[in-house]
Amino acid sequence: MALELPDLLRHARGDEPADLLLANARVVNVFSGEVYEADVAIAGDTIVGVGHGWEARRVMDLRGRHVAPGFIDAHVHVESAMVPPRELARAVVPRGVTTLVADPHEIANVLGFDGVRFMLENARGAPITLLVNAPSCVPATGMETSGASLPATELVKLLGEPGVLGLAEVMDFPGVVAGHSDVLAKLEAFRELPVDGHCPGLSGPALCAYAAAGIGSDHECTTVEEGREKLRLGMTIFLREASGAHDLRTLLPLVTAVSERRFCLCTDDREPADLLAEGSIDHLVRVAIAEGLAPLTAIRLATLNAAEYFRLRDRGAIAPGRRADLVVFDAPGAPRPDLVYVAGRLVARGGALVEPIEPAPVPPGVTRSVRVDWSRVDLRIRAVGRHVRVIRALPDRIVTESEIAEAAIRDGEAVADPRRDLLKMAVIERHGRRGTVGLGFVAGVGLRRGALASTVAHDHHNLLAIGADDRSMLTAARAVAEAGGGRAVADGDRVLALLALPIAGLMSDLPIEAVSDRAGDLIAAARTLGSALRDPFATVSFLALEVVPKLKLTDLGLVDVERFELVPLFVEERPA
Amino acid sequence: MALELPDLLRHARGDEPADLLLANARVVNVFSGEVYEADVAIAGDTIVGVGHGWEARRVMDLRGRHVAPGFIDAHVHVESAMVPPRELARAVVPRGVTTLVADPHEIANVLGFDGVRFMLENARGAPITLLVNAPSCVPATGMETSGASLPATELVKLLGEPGVLGLAEVMDFPGVVAGHSDVLAKLEAFRELPVDGHCPGLSGPALCAYAAAGIGSDHECTTVEEGREKLRLGMTIFLREASGAHDLRTLLPLVTAVSERRFCLCTDDREPADLLAEGSIDHLVRVAIAEGLAPLTAIRLATLNAAEYFRLRDRGAIAPGRRADLVVFDAPGAPRPDLVYVAGRLVARGGALVEPIEPAPVPPGVTRSVRVDWSRVDLRIRAVGRHVRVIRALPDRIVTESEIAEAAIRDGEAVADPRRDLLKMAVIERHGRRGTVGLGFVAGVGLRRGALASTVAHDHHNLLAIGADDRSMLTAARAVAEAGGGRAVADGDRVLALLALPIAGLMSDLPIEAVSDRAGDLIAAARTLGSALRDPFATVSFLALEVVPKLKLTDLGLVDVERFELVPLFVEERPA
Repeated sequence: MALELPDLLRHARGDEPADLLLANARVVNVFSGEVYEADVAIAGDTIVGVGHGWEARRVMDLRGRHVAPGFIDAHVHVESAMVPPRELARAVVPRGVTTLVADPHEIANVLGFDGVRFMLENARGAPITLLVNAPSCVPATGMETSGASLPATELVKLLGEPGVLGLAEVMDFPGVVAGHSDVLAKLEAFRELPVDGHCPGLSGPALCAYAAAGIGSDHECTTVEEGREKLRLGMTIFLREASGAHDLRTLLPLVTAVSERRFCLCTDDREPADLLAEGSIDHLVRVAIAEGLAPLTAIRLATLNAAEYFRLRDRGAIAPGRRADLVVFDAPGAPRPDLVYVAGRLVARGGALVEPIEPAPVPPGVTRSVRVDWSRVDLRIRAVGRHVRVIRALPDRIVTESEIAEAAIRDGEAVADPRRDLLKMAVIERHGRRGTVGLGFVAGVGLRRGALASTVAHDHHNLLAIGADDRSMLTAARAVAEAGGGRAVADGDRVLALLALPIAGLMSDLPIEAVSDRAGDLIAAARTLGSALRDPFATVSFLALEVVPKLKLTDLGLVDVERFELVPLFVEERPA
Repeated sequence: MALELPDLLRHARGDEPADLLLANARVVNVFSGEVYEADVAIAGDTIVGVGHGWEARRVMDLRGRHVAPGFIDAHVHVESAMVPPRELARAVVPRGVTTLVADPHEIANVLGFDGVRFMLENARGAPITLLVNAPSCVPATGMETSGASLPATELVKLLGEPGVLGLAEVMDFPGVVAGHSDVLAKLEAFRELPVDGHCPGLSGPALCAYAAAGIGSDHECTTVEEGREKLRLGMTIFLREASGAHDLRTLLPLVTAVSERRFCLCTDDREPADLLAEGSIDHLVRVAIAEGLAPLTAIRLATLNAAEYFRLRDRGAIAPGRRADLVVFDAPGAPRPDLVYVAGRLVARGGALVEPIEPAPVPPGVTRSVRVDWSRVDLRIRAVGRHVRVIRALPDRIVTESEIAEAAIRDGEAVADPRRDLLKMAVIERHGRRGTVGLGFVAGVGLRRGALASTVAHDHHNLLAIGADDRSMLTAARAVAEAGGGRAVADGDRVLALLALPIAGLMSDLPIEAVSDRAGDLIAAARTLGSALRDPFATVSFLALEVVPKLKLTDLGLVDVERFELVPLFVEERPA
């Protein structure tokens, strides 16, 4: 409960007892860089005193345990956990994550504003703060069909909406550097707010232009050199430990006593299994400490630094006037939050919630997002040449290679040839807009037979299917569509495994533990069909993302990302 | 000249040459904490590139000299330099100070908004950024007559005015802690902006209440213990090196690798002689380094830290998109700015301005501020008792002691007794409002004969006179009034020295060098009359400030600051 200032002052100066006193705490002070014994007095949702001298209606004697501010995830796509915000909260709140800065660009590509509002609405009442940055790149390009479009003229409508913090990762870095008017209009509209970046590999004058445009952060650094250049140019570096991108350890050497204030921690995309097994930001804090970072510095990255970067002056530290989002733990060398307080209330203890977080109803507009015109779906490829471009998927990478292979031609049609690891790939427009289907071939997924399908296909999230034969592909794709979205593995007419993701075709309505189990079933099923990838769905979900090199397939066809244009499937000659 | 974003980007990415290239610089990078060789490319008023790879219309080869961001004074009362902002700029810009965060509360006490606007207006076009915080305590209390009053309902009118940054030092800390409604209304009005504090000696739950109210800084710490407590509670500590308050060296032990980001540098009140002889923030940087602070850290305090505290995202660092306010110097161990760039233009070299800063016209409303009703000025004190309260001035302190002495009574009047160092003091209302005159006695000033008078009398700036006889007092006071305000020393009918301060009775229209000379003349004259104080005017200017203990005199009479009430001059009995 938020108190009015006069009431807050009454509690602070001790004229009225506090609501809660965390007594005999070892306070992790992210301002002074000290850890020392003190009491923390709380009134309503706010810290009113740190030190000694307060009485309280309830006293929790911490007997020397550590108390630190709640953790802040500086950049997360909730949709990657395949559950909506409240369900993600169930997983991360007991681990001490009390604030999420989310980029809802997956759901925005499907449902536009309605998707963004659903995310904010869904988190309401849950013991976590969900803040969102306005998705800056919906759709990613014009070479796809997304479910919604958020040009600058639309995006400004999010300005000032409660819970909207700034502009989310500006992935169109070539557009920024070149000064394209639509992306500059977005930057101008959000110039007084935090603007997150995304510019893998950008360097030199181009990077200076990107920074000069007012972009304040980057979470895509993969080498110390890249991170150092961006740090020097004033960008705050988000150290990422996602399921598919492990940059934290690599970049930690950059975090020194003189540079540490310019770093935050983020999970970006973490899958249910990793969230449940390792954790969230708490895991990153422990990894950083294990790698040699001072515990206090690691905690600062996860608290004050993110609060300062995002201008959240109400949290990120244990000080009078700030929200009582707090974690209590024993071993500073490997903090595992035992007690978690959110807005002054104990919400988790020993890794479990004190009170359950009940799911919220999902509005029908959010669950009926898969609209495929099956009458227009024809997976056959008429052979108009002898050689085809092939997408080469790389294990746990979002970039691909572009290859050329001899087509397998049967009855005048180019078909999959699983013996050569040449699978057919289809991207079926599923937003009920164009009814387009992009067709191509992919290597590196490794299915010997059967097919997989998914409505998680960054960023447009059309219905993607990959398989050794059209029948299996259609079985998987139809199963997914009938479930309102999801992921499936099929062989012939048989569905071997299915994870329904009825919320925008991206998120489940099941508990995250069940989602994790079924995701495991999918991988196992794909393995029986021959795929050796760690998680084939993680890899294939990026095969349709036409802003990451080199060759991708959208519902409009093959995209040569480096030329930034649609290219035909068949090529005239195989180059020497 | 400010460029539009598309133009800025053209220069940044190198499609168009920069306007200026500082080549072969050793860049002091306040983000990464490094110093390294790089070029700095500037277009218009903005840095567009740091690194290598730009061409420019003009190239300045720095041959390995250091370049750092321009210095920011986090808290300064321009009026203490006794010259208006443009003239102060003349003194501090060649020393590398490019941004002043000013609290114009002296002139606001005389002229209200008109005074604040005069300060902003006066700086316009000068090669410095003057930002002001809205004066929070005008008048200081109801036990005085000031020239203007700025209650919350008035103060909000400054919100959003260009150049207005936040709320200036909230000196009414007892009012904040106690929750007085007018001061809370000011805090609420400015809650989204930086709010500076001023709470000497506040500690424990009362300090927690003050911090919980949203007050973000304090520049009044005088001990390491005091600074540490405030630091821990989330207050940014401004390290002050004023003419009359030397806290920088004392507090430096608090500045460590883990705490440094929470400190800024400020001059608060610096007199012309100190500005000319030692400098401004550049002096504080050198002192800090000489005391053992790493040069890079000292520079950070003077640049990035202040920029971050005040949310000035356009300056405080050398990075693309930030203002090209830069200083170039040789010896990092004692930085003395040689070249100074403001908004991309070279404005000073070798300690001298490249182009003169011409004075701006002063509007008549600002110069006609001394309005004394002499018909009501009667300095005689009828003896209604045998003992009087005496203000004991302490050298270079703003606090006083409160004493009781036997009155010197002649012809039924209590008079000065310079042999006992008992001088008469008068505070003559000079704003043309009440015509009140407060009378009392002061010890510690040391005049054997004659008198001094001043319209610089914090914070109400009435006409203060102190002397050995009424005639000298009136001579000095009339000389000051006729000059439109100022400071004078007189003996009998003769004016020995006079510094006219016609701008609000606080500032001169002469060059700062002349002001410094005349201030020296005043001290010399006071010395011939017997005062041994370093600067008697500096000391006496606080004898009328009824918010600093213990005994003070305003135009309404003696104030016992600890009881916070007006008290009679005569006491019944001298206590045992």
